[in-house]
Amino acid sequence: EVARVMEKYDLVSVPVVDFQNKLVGRITIDDVVDIIKEEADKDFQLASGISEKIESNSTVWRMSRARLPWLLIGMLGGTLGAQVISTYEGSISQIPALAFFIPLITAMGGNVGVQSSAIVVQSLAKGNQFDSITSKLAKETLVGLLNGLICSLCIFGIATYFENQTLGITVSIALFVVIIFAAIMGSMIPLILNKYKIDPALATGPFVTTLNDVLGLFIYFTVGMILYGL
Amino acid sequence: EVARVMEKYDLVSVPVVDFQNKLVGRITIDDVVDIIKEEADKDFQLASGISEKIESNSTVWRMSRARLPWLLIGMLGGTLGAQVISTYEGSISQIPALAFFIPLITAMGGNVGVQSSAIVVQSLAKGNQFDSITSKLAKETLVGLLNGLICSLCIFGIATYFENQTLGITVSIALFVVIIFAAIMGSMIPLILNKYKIDPALATGPFVTTLNDVLGLFIYFTVGMILYGL
Repeated sequence: EVARVMEKYDLVSVPVVDFQNKLVGRITIDDVVDIIKEEADKDFQLASGISEKIESNSTVWRMSRARLPWLLIGMLGGTLGAQVISTYEGSISQIPALAFFIPLITAMGGNVGVQSSAIVVQSLAKGNQFDSITSKLAKETLVGLLNGLICSLCIFGIATYFENQTLGITVSIALFVVIIFAAIMGSMIPLILNKYKIDPALATGPFVTTLNDVLGLFIYFTVGMILYGL
Repeated sequence: EVARVMEKYDLVSVPVVDFQNKLVGRITIDDVVDIIKEEADKDFQLASGISEKIESNSTVWRMSRARLPWLLIGMLGGTLGAQVISTYEGSISQIPALAFFIPLITAMGGNVGVQSSAIVVQSLAKGNQFDSITSKLAKETLVGLLNGLICSLCIFGIATYFENQTLGITVSIALFVVIIFAAIMGSMIPLILNKYKIDPALATGPFVTTLNDVLGLFIYFTVGMILYGL
Protein backbone atom coordinates (compact mmCIF):
# COMPACT_ATOMS: atom_id res chain seq x y z
CA GLU A 1 0.00 0.00 0.00
CA VAL A 2 2.64 2.50 1.15
CA ALA A 3 4.96 1.23 -1.60
CA ARG A 4 2.31 1.96 -4.23
CA VAL A 5 1.71 5.52 -3.02
CA MET A 6 5.44 6.28 -2.77
CA GLU A 7 6.04 4.92 -6.24
CA LYS A 8 3.19 6.95 -7.69
CA TYR A 9 4.29 10.31 -6.24
CA ASP A 10 8.06 9.59 -6.42
CA LEU A 11 8.45 10.12 -2.66
CA VAL A 12 11.78 9.10 -1.11
CA SER A 13 10.61 8.97 2.50
CA VAL A 14 7.29 8.80 4.35
CA PRO A 15 6.82 9.72 8.02
CA VAL A 16 5.10 7.30 10.37
CA VAL A 17 3.07 8.94 13.15
CA ASP A 18 1.19 7.51 16.11
CA PHE A 19 -2.41 8.38 16.98
CA GLN A 20 -1.31 11.72 18.53
CA ASN A 21 0.50 12.64 15.30
CA LYS A 22 3.88 12.25 17.03
CA LEU A 23 6.65 11.11 14.71
CA VAL A 24 7.60 7.52 15.51
CA GLY A 25 9.73 6.68 12.48
CA ARG A 26 9.90 6.75 8.72
CA ILE A 27 9.72 4.46 5.77
CA THR A 28 12.45 5.20 3.24
CA ILE A 29 12.48 4.45 -0.45
CA ASP A 30 15.03 1.66 -0.13
CA ASP A 31 12.59 -0.34 2.00
CA VAL A 32 10.11 0.22 -0.80
CA VAL A 33 12.55 -1.06 -3.42
CA ASP A 34 12.94 -4.28 -1.43
CA ILE A 35 9.17 -4.70 -1.11
CA ILE A 36 8.52 -4.06 -4.79
CA LYS A 37 11.17 -6.60 -5.80
CA GLU A 38 9.86 -9.17 -3.38
CA GLU A 39 6.27 -8.76 -4.58
CA ALA A 40 7.34 -9.08 -8.21
CA ASP A 41 9.36 -12.22 -7.36
CA LYS A 42 6.42 -13.72 -5.52
CA ASP A 43 4.01 -13.04 -8.40
CA PHE A 44 6.46 -14.55 -10.86
CA GLN A 45 6.89 -17.69 -8.74
CA LEU A 46 3.15 -18.08 -8.14
CA ALA A 47 2.53 -17.76 -11.86
CA SER A 48 5.14 -20.46 -12.44
CA GLY A 49 3.40 -22.81 -10.02
CA ILE A 50 5.71 -22.43 -7.03
CA SER A 51 3.71 -22.03 -3.87
CA GLU A 52 6.32 -21.06 -1.25
CA LYS A 53 8.90 -18.31 -1.46
CA ILE A 54 12.14 -20.05 -2.37
CA GLU A 55 15.63 -18.90 -3.32
CA SER A 56 18.06 -20.70 -5.56
CA ASN A 57 20.01 -21.71 -2.45
CA SER A 58 17.05 -23.38 -0.70
CA THR A 59 17.40 -27.07 0.10
CA VAL A 60 16.27 -29.73 -2.36
CA TRP A 61 13.56 -30.86 0.05
CA ARG A 62 12.16 -27.34 0.40
CA MET A 63 12.23 -26.75 -3.37
CA SER A 64 10.46 -30.02 -3.95
CA ARG A 65 7.78 -29.23 -1.37
CA ALA A 66 7.12 -25.77 -2.84
CA ARG A 67 6.40 -27.30 -6.24
CA LEU A 68 4.42 -30.37 -5.30
CA PRO A 69 1.02 -28.71 -4.66
CA TRP A 70 0.85 -27.45 -8.24
CA LEU A 71 2.10 -30.71 -9.68
CA LEU A 72 -0.60 -32.58 -7.80
CA ILE A 73 -3.21 -30.13 -9.15
CA GLY A 74 -1.76 -30.79 -12.61
CA MET A 75 -2.11 -34.54 -12.01
CA LEU A 76 -5.71 -34.08 -10.94
CA GLY A 77 -6.33 -32.07 -14.13
CA GLY A 78 -4.62 -34.74 -16.20
CA THR A 79 -6.76 -37.42 -14.59
CA LEU A 80 -9.92 -35.43 -15.33
CA GLY A 81 -8.65 -35.02 -18.89
CA ALA A 82 -8.15 -38.79 -19.11
CA GLN A 83 -11.70 -39.26 -17.90
CA VAL A 84 -13.03 -36.88 -20.58
CA ILE A 85 -11.07 -38.65 -23.35
CA SER A 86 -12.10 -42.10 -22.10
CA THR A 87 -15.75 -41.27 -22.78
CA TYR A 88 -14.74 -40.94 -26.44
CA GLU A 89 -12.80 -44.25 -26.51
CA GLY A 90 -15.06 -45.64 -29.24
CA SER A 91 -14.52 -42.61 -31.48
CA ILE A 92 -10.73 -42.83 -31.04
CA SER A 93 -10.57 -46.52 -31.98
CA GLN A 94 -12.54 -45.69 -35.14
CA ILE A 95 -10.70 -42.45 -36.00
CA PRO A 96 -7.30 -42.61 -34.21
CA ALA A 97 -6.28 -39.44 -36.07
CA LEU A 98 -8.50 -37.53 -33.60
CA ALA A 99 -5.81 -38.20 -30.98
CA PHE A 100 -3.11 -36.44 -33.04
CA PHE A 101 -4.23 -32.93 -32.18
CA ILE A 102 -4.97 -33.46 -28.47
CA PRO A 103 -1.69 -31.78 -27.39
CA LEU A 104 -2.25 -28.85 -29.75
CA ILE A 105 -5.71 -28.16 -28.34
CA THR A 106 -4.61 -28.39 -24.69
CA ALA A 107 -1.38 -26.42 -25.26
CA MET A 108 -3.13 -23.58 -27.08
CA GLY A 109 -5.87 -23.36 -24.45
CA GLY A 110 -3.16 -23.15 -21.79
CA ASN A 111 -1.08 -20.55 -23.65
CA VAL A 112 -4.00 -18.23 -24.34
CA GLY A 113 -5.28 -18.57 -20.77
CA VAL A 114 -1.88 -17.71 -19.30
CA GLN A 115 -1.45 -14.71 -21.61
CA SER A 116 -4.86 -13.29 -20.71
CA SER A 117 -4.45 -13.80 -16.99
CA ALA A 118 -0.92 -12.32 -16.99
CA ILE A 119 -2.25 -9.03 -18.36
CA VAL A 120 -5.11 -8.91 -15.87
CA VAL A 121 -2.84 -9.86 -12.93
CA GLN A 122 -0.38 -7.12 -13.85
CA SER A 123 -3.01 -4.46 -14.21
CA LEU A 124 -4.48 -5.50 -10.83
CA ALA A 125 -1.00 -5.40 -9.22
CA LYS A 126 -0.57 -1.84 -10.47
CA GLY A 127 -3.83 -0.91 -8.78
CA ASN A 128 -5.25 0.02 -12.16
CA GLN A 129 -8.95 0.29 -11.47
CA PHE A 130 -9.77 2.65 -14.35
CA ASP A 131 -11.27 0.06 -16.65
CA SER A 132 -14.36 -1.64 -15.44
CA ILE A 133 -14.43 -5.42 -15.29
CA THR A 134 -16.77 -5.63 -18.25
CA SER A 135 -14.48 -3.52 -20.45
CA LYS A 136 -11.51 -5.78 -19.54
CA LEU A 137 -13.53 -8.86 -20.42
CA ALA A 138 -14.77 -7.32 -23.66
CA LYS A 139 -11.22 -6.45 -24.70
CA GLU A 140 -9.84 -9.91 -23.91
CA THR A 141 -12.73 -11.47 -25.81
CA LEU A 142 -11.94 -9.32 -28.86
CA VAL A 143 -8.24 -10.24 -28.69
CA GLY A 144 -9.29 -13.89 -28.37
CA LEU A 145 -11.56 -13.60 -31.42
CA LEU A 146 -8.80 -12.07 -33.54
CA ASN A 147 -6.07 -14.52 -32.48
CA GLY A 148 -8.51 -17.43 -32.62
CA LEU A 149 -9.38 -16.58 -36.20
CA ILE A 150 -5.74 -16.34 -37.30
CA CYS A 151 -4.69 -19.56 -35.53
CA SER A 152 -7.72 -21.50 -36.76
CA LEU A 153 -7.05 -20.57 -40.38
CA CYS A 154 -3.42 -21.73 -40.01
CA ILE A 155 -4.34 -25.03 -38.39
CA PHE A 156 -7.07 -25.70 -40.94
CA GLY A 157 -4.41 -25.62 -43.65
CA ILE A 158 -1.94 -27.71 -41.64
CA ALA A 159 -4.39 -30.41 -40.53
CA THR A 160 -6.01 -30.69 -43.95
CA TYR A 161 -2.64 -31.09 -45.66
CA PHE A 162 -1.47 -33.44 -42.92
CA GLU A 163 -4.53 -35.69 -42.71
CA ASN A 164 -7.85 -34.75 -44.36
CA GLN A 165 -10.41 -31.97 -44.62
CA THR A 166 -12.77 -33.36 -41.96
CA LEU A 167 -9.96 -33.34 -39.41
CA GLY A 168 -8.94 -29.87 -40.64
CA ILE A 169 -12.44 -28.50 -40.03
CA THR A 170 -12.71 -30.30 -36.65
CA VAL A 171 -9.39 -28.99 -35.34
CA SER A 172 -9.92 -25.44 -36.59
CA ILE A 173 -13.45 -25.06 -35.19
CA ALA A 174 -12.40 -26.59 -31.86
CA LEU A 175 -9.28 -24.40 -31.66
CA PHE A 176 -11.31 -21.26 -32.36
CA VAL A 177 -13.81 -22.04 -29.59
CA VAL A 178 -11.03 -23.09 -27.18
CA ILE A 179 -9.04 -19.88 -27.71
CA ILE A 180 -12.06 -17.66 -27.05
CA PHE A 181 -13.05 -19.66 -23.96
CA ALA A 182 -9.47 -19.59 -22.68
CA ALA A 183 -9.20 -15.82 -23.17
CA ILE A 184 -12.42 -15.26 -21.22
CA MET A 185 -11.57 -17.75 -18.44
CA GLY A 186 -7.99 -16.45 -18.20
CA SER A 187 -9.18 -12.92 -17.54
CA MET A 188 -12.21 -13.79 -15.43
CA ILE A 189 -10.51 -16.07 -12.91
CA PRO A 190 -7.96 -13.51 -11.63
CA LEU A 191 -10.73 -10.88 -11.43
CA ILE A 192 -12.88 -13.24 -9.37
CA LEU A 193 -9.97 -14.26 -7.10
CA ASN A 194 -9.15 -10.58 -6.58
CA LYS A 195 -12.73 -9.84 -5.61
CA TYR A 196 -12.54 -12.49 -2.89
CA LYS A 197 -9.16 -11.11 -1.67
CA ILE A 198 -7.20 -14.12 -2.98
CA ASP A 199 -3.91 -13.29 -4.71
CA PRO A 200 -4.87 -13.18 -8.42
CA ALA A 201 -1.35 -14.31 -9.42
CA LEU A 202 -2.46 -17.79 -8.34
CA ALA A 203 -4.60 -17.90 -11.46
CA THR A 204 -1.76 -17.58 -13.96
CA GLY A 205 -0.27 -20.90 -12.89
CA PRO A 206 -1.27 -24.49 -13.57
CA PHE A 207 -4.79 -23.69 -12.33
CA VAL A 208 -5.90 -21.84 -15.48
CA THR A 209 -3.95 -24.28 -17.66
CA THR A 210 -5.59 -27.30 -16.06
CA LEU A 211 -9.10 -25.92 -16.33
CA ASN A 212 -8.58 -25.01 -19.98
CA ASP A 213 -7.21 -28.50 -20.73
CA VAL A 214 -10.35 -30.22 -19.51
CA LEU A 215 -12.68 -27.75 -21.23
CA GLY A 216 -10.65 -27.85 -24.45
CA LEU A 217 -10.73 -31.65 -24.67
CA PHE A 218 -14.48 -31.68 -24.20
CA ILE A 219 -15.00 -29.09 -26.96
CA TYR A 220 -12.58 -30.83 -29.34
CA PHE A 221 -14.12 -34.30 -29.08
CA THR A 222 -17.67 -32.96 -29.20
CA VAL A 223 -16.92 -31.12 -32.44
CA GLY A 224 -15.10 -34.21 -33.76
CA MET A 225 -18.01 -36.55 -33.05
CA ILE A 226 -20.48 -34.21 -34.74
CA LEU A 227 -18.36 -33.70 -37.86
CA TYR A 228 -17.35 -37.35 -38.23
CA GLY A 229 -20.95 -38.38 -37.51
CA LEU A 230 -19.88 -40.79 -34.73
CA GLU B 1 23.17 -2.30 -13.87
CA VAL B 2 22.97 0.96 -11.88
CA ALA B 3 19.65 -0.20 -10.45
CA ARG B 4 21.24 -3.41 -9.16
CA VAL B 5 24.14 -1.58 -7.44
CA MET B 6 21.82 1.01 -5.87
CA GLU B 7 19.50 -1.70 -4.61
CA LYS B 8 22.37 -3.70 -3.14
CA TYR B 9 23.91 -0.80 -1.18
CA ASP B 10 20.61 0.98 -0.42
CA LEU B 11 21.78 4.17 -2.15
CA VAL B 12 19.17 6.88 -2.79
CA SER B 13 21.10 8.84 -5.39
CA VAL B 14 24.09 8.25 -7.68
CA PRO B 15 26.11 11.03 -9.35
CA VAL B 16 26.73 10.92 -13.09
CA VAL B 17 30.05 12.41 -14.20
CA ASP B 18 31.53 13.08 -17.62
CA PHE B 19 35.01 12.01 -18.71
CA GLN B 20 36.60 14.94 -16.82
CA ASN B 21 34.79 13.87 -13.62
CA LYS B 22 32.53 16.96 -13.84
CA LEU B 23 29.08 16.41 -12.43
CA VAL B 24 26.52 16.27 -15.22
CA GLY B 25 23.52 14.94 -13.34
CA ARG B 26 22.29 12.27 -10.99
CA ILE B 27 20.18 9.16 -10.96
CA THR B 28 17.78 9.09 -8.04
CA ILE B 29 16.17 6.12 -6.37
CA ASP B 30 12.74 6.85 -7.82
CA ASP B 31 14.13 6.33 -11.32
CA VAL B 32 15.44 3.02 -10.04
CA VAL B 33 12.04 2.02 -8.67
CA ASP B 34 10.55 2.61 -12.11
CA ILE B 35 13.27 0.55 -13.79
CA ILE B 36 12.96 -2.35 -11.34
CA LYS B 37 9.19 -2.46 -11.78
CA GLU B 38 9.49 -2.30 -15.54
CA GLU B 39 12.05 -5.12 -15.65
CA ALA B 40 9.91 -7.30 -13.40
CA ASP B 41 6.85 -6.59 -15.57
CA LYS B 42 8.78 -7.44 -18.72
CA ASP B 43 10.05 -10.76 -17.27
CA PHE B 44 6.54 -11.65 -16.16
CA GLN B 45 5.09 -10.88 -19.59
CA LEU B 46 7.86 -12.75 -21.43
CA ALA B 47 7.30 -15.77 -19.19
CA SER B 48 3.60 -15.58 -20.01
CA GLY B 49 4.31 -15.57 -23.72
CA ILE B 50 3.77 -11.90 -24.47
CA SER B 51 6.50 -10.59 -26.70
CA GLU B 52 5.97 -6.80 -26.66
CA LYS B 53 5.57 -4.51 -23.69
CA ILE B 54 1.85 -3.87 -23.37
CA GLU B 55 -0.39 -2.17 -20.85
CA SER B 56 -3.97 -3.02 -20.08
CA ASN B 57 -5.01 0.10 -22.02
CA SER B 58 -3.20 -0.88 -25.24
CA THR B 59 -5.35 -1.33 -28.33
CA VAL B 60 -6.88 -4.71 -29.20
CA TRP B 61 -4.74 -4.89 -32.34
CA ARG B 62 -1.52 -4.25 -30.40
CA MET B 63 -2.43 -6.80 -27.70
CA SER B 64 -3.21 -9.36 -30.34
CA ARG B 65 0.09 -8.75 -32.17
CA ALA B 66 2.11 -9.07 -28.95
CA ARG B 67 0.67 -12.51 -28.31
CA LEU B 68 0.65 -14.00 -31.78
CA PRO B 69 4.36 -14.96 -32.02
CA TRP B 70 4.06 -17.31 -29.05
CA LEU B 71 0.75 -18.73 -30.22
CA LEU B 72 2.30 -19.52 -33.59
CA ILE B 73 5.24 -21.22 -31.82
CA GLY B 74 2.67 -23.17 -29.81
CA MET B 75 0.92 -24.19 -33.04
CA LEU B 76 4.22 -25.33 -34.51
CA GLY B 77 4.84 -27.38 -31.35
CA GLY B 78 1.31 -28.82 -31.52
CA THR B 79 1.87 -29.77 -35.16
CA LEU B 80 5.16 -31.48 -34.27
CA GLY B 81 3.30 -33.26 -31.45
CA ALA B 82 0.64 -34.39 -33.95
CA GLN B 83 3.41 -35.72 -36.19
CA VAL B 84 4.91 -37.69 -33.27
CA ILE B 85 1.53 -39.20 -32.32
CA SER B 86 0.69 -40.02 -35.94
CA THR B 87 3.67 -42.38 -36.09
CA TYR B 88 1.91 -44.40 -33.37
CA GLU B 89 -1.48 -44.41 -35.15
CA GLY B 90 -1.49 -48.23 -35.31
CA SER B 91 -0.86 -48.54 -31.58
CA ILE B 92 -3.66 -46.09 -30.76
CA SER B 93 -6.24 -47.91 -32.89
CA GLN B 94 -5.30 -51.15 -31.04
CA ILE B 95 -5.08 -49.60 -27.55
CA PRO B 96 -7.13 -46.35 -27.62
CA ALA B 97 -6.63 -46.09 -23.85
CA LEU B 98 -3.07 -44.92 -24.61
CA ALA B 99 -4.60 -41.62 -25.77
CA PHE B 100 -6.26 -40.98 -22.39
CA PHE B 101 -3.10 -39.83 -20.65
CA ILE B 102 -1.66 -37.70 -23.47
CA PRO B 103 -2.77 -34.42 -21.79
CA LEU B 104 -1.40 -35.53 -18.40
CA ILE B 105 2.04 -36.27 -19.86
CA THR B 106 2.27 -33.01 -21.81
CA ALA B 107 0.82 -30.88 -19.00
CA MET B 108 3.20 -32.30 -16.38
CA GLY B 109 6.22 -31.88 -18.65
CA GLY B 110 5.19 -28.27 -19.19
CA ASN B 111 4.53 -27.55 -15.49
CA VAL B 112 7.85 -28.99 -14.31
CA GLY B 113 9.75 -27.20 -17.07
CA VAL B 114 8.19 -23.84 -16.21
CA GLN B 115 8.87 -24.30 -12.47
CA SER B 116 12.54 -25.14 -13.07
CA SER B 117 13.13 -22.32 -15.51
CA ALA B 118 11.37 -19.78 -13.27
CA ILE B 119 13.84 -20.45 -10.44
CA VAL B 120 16.84 -20.22 -12.77
CA VAL B 121 15.54 -17.06 -14.47
CA GLN B 122 14.99 -15.37 -11.09
CA SER B 123 18.42 -16.27 -9.76
CA LEU B 124 19.97 -14.98 -13.01
CA ALA B 125 17.94 -11.72 -12.78
CA LYS B 126 19.31 -11.19 -9.26
CA GLY B 127 22.82 -11.51 -10.62
CA ASN B 128 23.31 -14.56 -8.42
CA GLN B 129 26.44 -16.15 -9.85
CA PHE B 130 27.51 -17.96 -6.68
CA ASP B 131 26.37 -21.40 -7.71
CA SER B 132 28.11 -22.89 -10.67
CA ILE B 133 26.01 -24.11 -13.58
CA THR B 134 26.67 -27.74 -12.72
CA SER B 135 25.47 -27.32 -9.13
CA LYS B 136 22.24 -25.67 -10.39
CA LEU B 137 21.65 -28.52 -12.78
CA ALA B 138 22.44 -31.14 -10.13
CA LYS B 139 19.95 -29.54 -7.74
CA GLU B 140 17.17 -29.31 -10.32
CA THR B 141 17.79 -32.93 -11.28
CA LEU B 142 17.47 -34.01 -7.64
CA VAL B 143 14.22 -32.03 -7.21
CA GLY B 144 13.00 -33.63 -10.45
CA LEU B 145 13.87 -37.12 -9.16
CA LEU B 146 12.02 -36.56 -5.91
CA ASN B 147 8.89 -35.00 -7.46
CA GLY B 148 8.97 -37.49 -10.31
CA LEU B 149 8.97 -40.37 -7.85
CA ILE B 150 6.03 -38.98 -5.86
CA CYS B 151 3.94 -38.13 -8.94
CA SER B 152 4.68 -41.46 -10.64
CA LEU B 153 3.55 -43.43 -7.60
CA CYS B 154 0.28 -41.43 -7.50
CA ILE B 155 -0.43 -41.88 -11.20
CA PHE B 156 0.40 -45.58 -11.06
CA GLY B 157 -2.41 -46.03 -8.57
CA ILE B 158 -4.81 -43.78 -10.49
CA ALA B 159 -4.21 -45.28 -13.95
CA THR B 160 -4.28 -48.87 -12.65
CA TYR B 161 -7.59 -48.29 -10.85
CA PHE B 162 -8.93 -46.34 -13.81
CA GLU B 163 -7.90 -48.74 -16.58
CA ASN B 164 -5.42 -51.59 -16.02
CA GLN B 165 -1.96 -52.34 -14.62
CA THR B 166 -0.17 -52.23 -17.99
CA LEU B 167 -1.41 -48.68 -18.56
CA GLY B 168 -0.55 -47.84 -14.94
CA ILE B 169 3.05 -48.96 -15.42
CA THR B 170 3.30 -47.24 -18.82
CA VAL B 171 2.02 -43.88 -17.55
CA SER B 172 4.08 -43.93 -14.35
CA ILE B 173 7.39 -44.82 -16.05
CA ALA B 174 6.78 -42.26 -18.80
CA LEU B 175 5.80 -39.57 -16.28
CA PHE B 176 8.92 -40.22 -14.19
CA VAL B 177 11.22 -39.88 -17.22
CA VAL B 178 9.31 -36.83 -18.53
CA ILE B 179 9.53 -34.99 -15.18
CA ILE B 180 13.30 -35.51 -14.90
CA PHE B 181 13.86 -34.48 -18.52
CA ALA B 182 11.64 -31.41 -18.07
CA ALA B 183 13.50 -30.36 -14.90
CA ILE B 184 16.86 -30.61 -16.68
CA MET B 185 15.66 -28.89 -19.88
CA GLY B 186 13.84 -26.19 -17.91
CA SER B 187 16.99 -25.19 -16.07
CA MET B 188 19.43 -25.70 -18.95
CA ILE B 189 17.63 -23.61 -21.56
CA PRO B 190 17.64 -20.31 -19.59
CA LEU B 191 21.30 -20.89 -18.67
CA ILE B 192 22.19 -21.42 -22.33
CA LEU B 193 20.14 -18.38 -23.47
CA ASN B 194 21.84 -16.27 -20.81
CA LYS B 195 25.28 -17.39 -21.98
CA TYR B 196 24.46 -16.16 -25.49
CA LYS B 197 23.14 -12.83 -24.11
CA ILE B 198 19.50 -13.66 -24.92
CA ASP B 199 16.96 -12.75 -22.21
CA PRO B 200 16.56 -16.01 -20.23
CA ALA B 201 12.96 -15.08 -19.34
CA LEU B 202 12.09 -16.09 -22.91
CA ALA B 203 12.63 -19.70 -21.85
CA THR B 204 9.88 -19.79 -19.21
CA GLY B 205 7.21 -19.24 -21.82
CA PRO B 206 5.67 -21.52 -24.42
CA PHE B 207 9.16 -22.37 -25.70
CA VAL B 208 10.03 -24.73 -22.82
CA THR B 209 6.46 -26.04 -22.71
CA THR B 210 6.42 -26.82 -26.43
CA LEU B 211 9.77 -28.60 -26.37
CA ASN B 212 8.73 -30.70 -23.39
CA ASP B 213 5.44 -31.61 -25.08
CA VAL B 214 7.14 -33.12 -28.09
CA LEU B 215 9.77 -34.91 -26.00
CA GLY B 216 7.16 -36.18 -23.54
CA LEU B 217 4.93 -37.64 -26.25
CA PHE B 218 7.86 -39.49 -27.75
CA ILE B 219 8.85 -40.97 -24.38
CA TYR B 220 5.26 -41.91 -23.49
CA PHE B 221 4.48 -43.77 -26.69
CA THR B 222 7.86 -45.49 -26.81
CA VAL B 223 7.34 -46.84 -23.27
CA GLY B 224 3.75 -47.78 -24.19
CA MET B 225 4.77 -49.72 -27.30
CA ILE B 226 7.43 -51.65 -25.37
CA LEU B 227 5.14 -52.55 -22.46
CA TYR B 228 2.13 -53.44 -24.62
CA GLY B 229 4.47 -55.35 -26.97
CA LEU B 230 3.15 -53.48 -30.05
